[in-house]
Amino acid sequence: MIDSPLVSIIMGSDSDLPVMQHAADMLDYFGICYEIDIVSAHRTPQRMFDFAQNAHRRGVKVIIAGAGGAAHLPGMVASLSPLPVIGVPVKSSNSIDGWDSVLSILQMPGGIPVATVALNGAKNAGILAASIIGSSDSNILKKIESYKEMLSNEVQAKAEQMKRKK
Amino acid sequence: MIDSPLVSIIMGSDSDLPVMQHAADMLDYFGICYEIDIVSAHRTPQRMFDFAQNAHRRGVKVIIAGAGGAAHLPGMVASLSPLPVIGVPVKSSNSIDGWDSVLSILQMPGGIPVATVALNGAKNAGILAASIIGSSDSNILKKIESYKEMLSNEVQAKAEQMKRKK
Amino acid sequence: MIDSPLVSIIMGSDSDLPVMQHAADMLDYFGICYEIDIVSAHRTPQRMFDFAQNAHRRGVKVIIAGAGGAAHLPGMVASLSPLPVIGVPVKSSNSIDGWDSVLSILQMPGGIPVATVALNGAKNAGILAASIIGSSDSNILKKIESYKEMLSNEVQAKAEQMKRKK
Amino acid sequence: MIDSPLVSIIMGSDSDLPVMQHAADMLDYFGICYEIDIVSAHRTPQRMFDFAQNAHRRGVKVIIAGAGGAAHLPGMVASLSPLPVIGVPVKSSNSIDGWDSVLSILQMPGGIPVATVALNGAKNAGILAASIIGSSDSNILKKIESYKEMLSNEVQAKAEQMKRKK
Amino acid sequence: MIDSPLVSIIMGSDSDLPVMQHAADMLDYFGICYEIDIVSAHRTPQRMFDFAQNAHRRGVKVIIAGAGGAAHLPGMVASLSPLPVIGVPVKSSNSIDGWDSVLSILQMPGGIPVATVALNGAKNAGILAASIIGSSDSNILKKIESYKEMLSNEVQAKAEQMKRKK
Amino acid sequence: MIDSPLVSIIMGSDSDLPVMQHAADMLDYFGICYEIDIVSAHRTPQRMFDFAQNAHRRGVKVIIAGAGGAAHLPGMVASLSPLPVIGVPVKSSNSIDGWDSVLSILQMPGGIPVATVALNGAKNAGILAASIIGSSDSNILKKIESYKEMLSNEVQAKAEQMKRKK
Amino acid sequence: MIDSPLVSIIMGSDSDLPVMQHAADMLDYFGICYEIDIVSAHRTPQRMFDFAQNAHRRGVKVIIAGAGGAAHLPGMVASLSPLPVIGVPVKSSNSIDGWDSVLSILQMPGGIPVATVALNGAKNAGILAASIIGSSDSNILKKIESYKEMLSNEVQAKAEQMKRKK
Amino acid sequence: MIDSPLVSIIMGSDSDLPVMQHAADMLDYFGICYEIDIVSAHRTPQRMFDFAQNAHRRGVKVIIAGAGGAAHLPGMVASLSPLPVIGVPVKSSNSIDGWDSVLSILQMPGGIPVATVALNGAKNAGILAASIIGSSDSNILKKIESYKEMLSNEVQAKAEQMKRKK
Repeated sequence: MIDSPLVSIIMGSDSDLPVMQHAADMLDYFGICYEIDIVSAHRTPQRMFDFAQNAHRRGVKVIIAGAGGAAHLPGMVASLSPLPVIGVPVKSSNSIDGWDSVLSILQMPGGIPVATVALNGAKNAGILAASIIGSSDSNILKKIESYKEMLSNEVQAKAEQMKRKK
Repeated sequence: MIDSPLVSIIMGSDSDLPVMQHAADMLDYFGICYEIDIVSAHRTPQRMFDFAQNAHRRGVKVIIAGAGGAAHLPGMVASLSPLPVIGVPVKSSNSIDGWDSVLSILQMPGGIPVATVALNGAKNAGILAASIIGSSDSNILKKIESYKEMLSNEVQAKAEQMKRKK
Repeated sequence: MIDSPLVSIIMGSDSDLPVMQHAADMLDYFGICYEIDIVSAHRTPQRMFDFAQNAHRRGVKVIIAGAGGAAHLPGMVASLSPLPVIGVPVKSSNSIDGWDSVLSILQMPGGIPVATVALNGAKNAGILAASIIGSSDSNILKKIESYKEMLSNEVQAKAEQMKRKK
Repeated sequence: MIDSPLVSIIMGSDSDLPVMQHAADMLDYFGICYEIDIVSAHRTPQRMFDFAQNAHRRGVKVIIAGAGGAAHLPGMVASLSPLPVIGVPVKSSNSIDGWDSVLSILQMPGGIPVATVALNGAKNAGILAASIIGSSDSNILKKIESYKEMLSNEVQAKAEQMKRKK
Repeated sequence: MIDSPLVSIIMGSDSDLPVMQHAADMLDYFGICYEIDIVSAHRTPQRMFDFAQNAHRRGVKVIIAGAGGAAHLPGMVASLSPLPVIGVPVKSSNSIDGWDSVLSILQMPGGIPVATVALNGAKNAGILAASIIGSSDSNILKKIESYKEMLSNEVQAKAEQMKRKK
Repeated sequence: MIDSPLVSIIMGSDSDLPVMQHAADMLDYFGICYEIDIVSAHRTPQRMFDFAQNAHRRGVKVIIAGAGGAAHLPGMVASLSPLPVIGVPVKSSNSIDGWDSVLSILQMPGGIPVATVALNGAKNAGILAASIIGSSDSNILKKIESYKEMLSNEVQAKAEQMKRKK
Repeated sequence: MIDSPLVSIIMGSDSDLPVMQHAADMLDYFGICYEIDIVSAHRTPQRMFDFAQNAHRRGVKVIIAGAGGAAHLPGMVASLSPLPVIGVPVKSSNSIDGWDSVLSILQMPGGIPVATVALNGAKNAGILAASIIGSSDSNILKKIESYKEMLSNEVQAKAEQMKRKK
Repeated sequence: MIDSPLVSIIMGSDSDLPVMQHAADMLDYFGICYEIDIVSAHRTPQRMFDFAQNAHRRGVKVIIAGAGGAAHLPGMVASLSPLPVIGVPVKSSNSIDGWDSVLSILQMPGGIPVATVALNGAKNAGILAASIIGSSDSNILKKIESYKEMLSNEVQAKAEQMKRKK
């Protein structure tokens, strides 16, 4: 990763990495340069402040933030950065079935949006970041179109396979 | 609106307009050209298909889609378009407290993301669309920074006012 | 299956097959000809369109559609087909306890019904399809009556067994 | 209504009539003969038994049953009749947001399906009954196709209207 | 069990027995004669009818009914019997976290009460049945008082044990 | 009310009276002597203690306890009295849709049952108290049977009325 | 209020004041000096930072923070201050029944506690702040004991009144 | 522990100990003297009464109470003691996903606060107790500040480690 990162993937705890890795994998797939870091709203508030206020100055275009429980990281970063922030609710161990992280990321007050994806939906966060970059980069846009074709082909191949088994 | 629209705001029914208008208002605020239309996944599926497959060819950069109940419009448009799709769950009349539209927009399967905002959160959908455009347009990015400053000033003015009342 | 299928069982992903197989088993039990296929609303939208618009022209009488998460397949097929569509909410891996698939199938807007069965309730989808066909086929109707008698006999046999154990 | 009714609409209480009337309206629209009655699982269990065991003998093809709270009517009728039973969860006054009627109709055990529609979704129950009859009556099937076209035209007319207002 | 049973424990399926056995155990503990049987509202409606209409004629004083999912057994028995009916929501395999059985037993309409206990709370159903019988049988009442003393002593013994470990 | 009360209706606050009055009305209907009082677990814990430990000594046979929010009254009284305790969850003003009172009354631990009725279901609490007394008083039992007949007749009269209107 | 404030009441928006005023009222009742201010985590993050890092240096002993929706204020203040922070979930206009503010305040990760009170429970927040101060101030502790006696007397007076009405 | 305990940790059952131990561990960490005991609201109501009415007379400053299901212990202790009471909802075996203990601890009526922490959040209960004591003990306050620094350092060390792995 010699290029300057376009996407910054942050998470509240290293225990979120197995989920958040899927965002990184999709960015690798689309050939988009990214960085990955641990930034905790609750345990490293100053670090979060510094990160959020400076990311766009370092050339970052999109932030992906994952957190569990009372998940304040995506919303706090969104309050401090002018960039689009994608929030990934992570189902942590003492979560109440994931509702806590979903609602504390999704239900942001008017003025401070977070682009929320599904519970543990880091893969989709990566694709969404790609489509945001793709909205002004026709090369990436085409890769997304190809990716969707590939998804379609995969389904059709499995459908064929199912028919042959019968 | 002589310019070609950069953002397309669509909704499943004209009864969603009072909510969705807030997205348009924010785009007006940021001076971003948009279009607004009714496209129903369930009642006009062909129209939705045509819309979603062609939006990016007409120069649209971001789609905002609002719907209530079993809200399939944002997800179906996301499946057909390479553009970033922002989903607005609308609390419709027979909704089960809004949970139906929230979950049927948020919980998209891996491969097809929808950037979901809060229940009835069309204002934030407009701001998020602006920040997506701003991620590659420094002029808009600055407007978003100014907007956040203004939010901060408003709060501080109200805090002053509260103190004087005491 | 030389006969033309009366029931079409579709699902969004091959991972839904272990659940959806129970629908097929009940149709086998009632001797009703069916087909089984993978059709994804999100990954193969065109395939879904073609399927839904043509099923009734191929002699299909009832469609059973299963999907998990933000489950749009049953509702979208219902929007495109005049046939009765039975929706099976599947509890997928990242589901929020199944609420997402239940609500995104059940809470269809006025005009586009989906006949929803219980979470993972594919067995009942198969029986419901049989009773729909039975509503105009007295032969099948009688088989359903016999099936209900058999259920009753099974319970009574188990009750006897329990008494003897005491 | 000189013809023998093909659809029987029943409800647990006359307080459910304002909701259930929408099912009757749709059957009127499609020109399908129906009857409408009050049958309470809890207050008139014998009447419910007699109704459910005989409906198919009187020529009824589909039963629509609406009830609120711990709504046992649709499921009990389904246990006693070989006909397809459509359940309409009604949001009654002391309901816990409608969850009680939704879950006590939807979550039927394996063997006894109820075709559940949305909370207060009697309109869709009427359409679903029509499509069940339509699955063996090409005349009704065509009417359903026309109805869906009409829904589409309505949306497109409203979309035109919205554009002109701009 | 030569005596005529005072309490009748019924359940919708033999798969509910591991839960419902706890009710029987408590009745054994209090020396109250009971019977135990499988009666399914959905699969053996006639059997349920006969059971519920006759239980009080056979000398039964209290009915305990357990069921899972869309659990109609307790409520239907309550509609047919003048006896107090205790409902035990059972968390069955495809339940939505038990909410379905809880709500379809608890939320009975005005006129037909079911005395609902906690999810899988068959032990408490047995104790409640004993206290109902105890309300007119001072011998049983005294046993319940002793039982509560025993519970208290158990806790105090454990508290002592914890202190000694320190 | 010269007779000694057989049923004691208590509630946590006088604001619960409009709901709890329905229990009293049903006991009046069945001619069962009752008392009605305010006893707060949280604001008058000593009073609650004295009440619960002595009710059965005063001839009370059944206790009905209503409370809202974190409703501890029914469970605490049940822990202190050998009598059957019926709990009425009351939907108070700051309740989270009634879930708080339902769950804090229903989900009692093993050993201490509360016979829970529906949210705001005081009418059913009154009927349940009557059926508990009726389980050892054939006079009351017959009144309950007559009451159920009356409910059935009411439904049938309304059904007749609906038919005539057509 | 010449004394230095011991309690600081902050809220995310002036629309929260009608709820949060109840905390101030209770502190007035106990004669505890407080300040009241608007501090928004999302709209004035720097102001929140400064407030939270300095409150204990100004002599504040307890912080009460109220917020609605995705309510990050209490948790963020708790992450920045060593003082006990009491969180008041406020039911704001677009809240999903209050669940969002409850869960985003309550479900804090290990290391950063927030003392959460009931939805809209600002009155209790004021009392809790008093009891925290009372834990090291016997004068306040006695006032709390008197307050509880007063609550008890109020209930008993109402109970007397109810008896006389009969 | 020769000193008189400042914090009293109680729980409804010894099965809650694995969760509640984390509160004790944090108090050990901060060097605060505590006691630990089993006190059940439902099984040892008299013991709970005696405990709650006397704790502050023995020098206890803060009470931590953990319980599961219909968890009445924290609220009942709060009704009887002038001290701040911290409630820990414990996810017990037959809990409905923990909602029962959360709501029956959190949703206390006006007048009787419980400082509620997250589900199974005993660690945070310990820290909160420390910060309550710290609000009038500058030595403890400094330890809490050091603890938060340590949390921050831990996160930063893990972030470094993650970067090196890349």
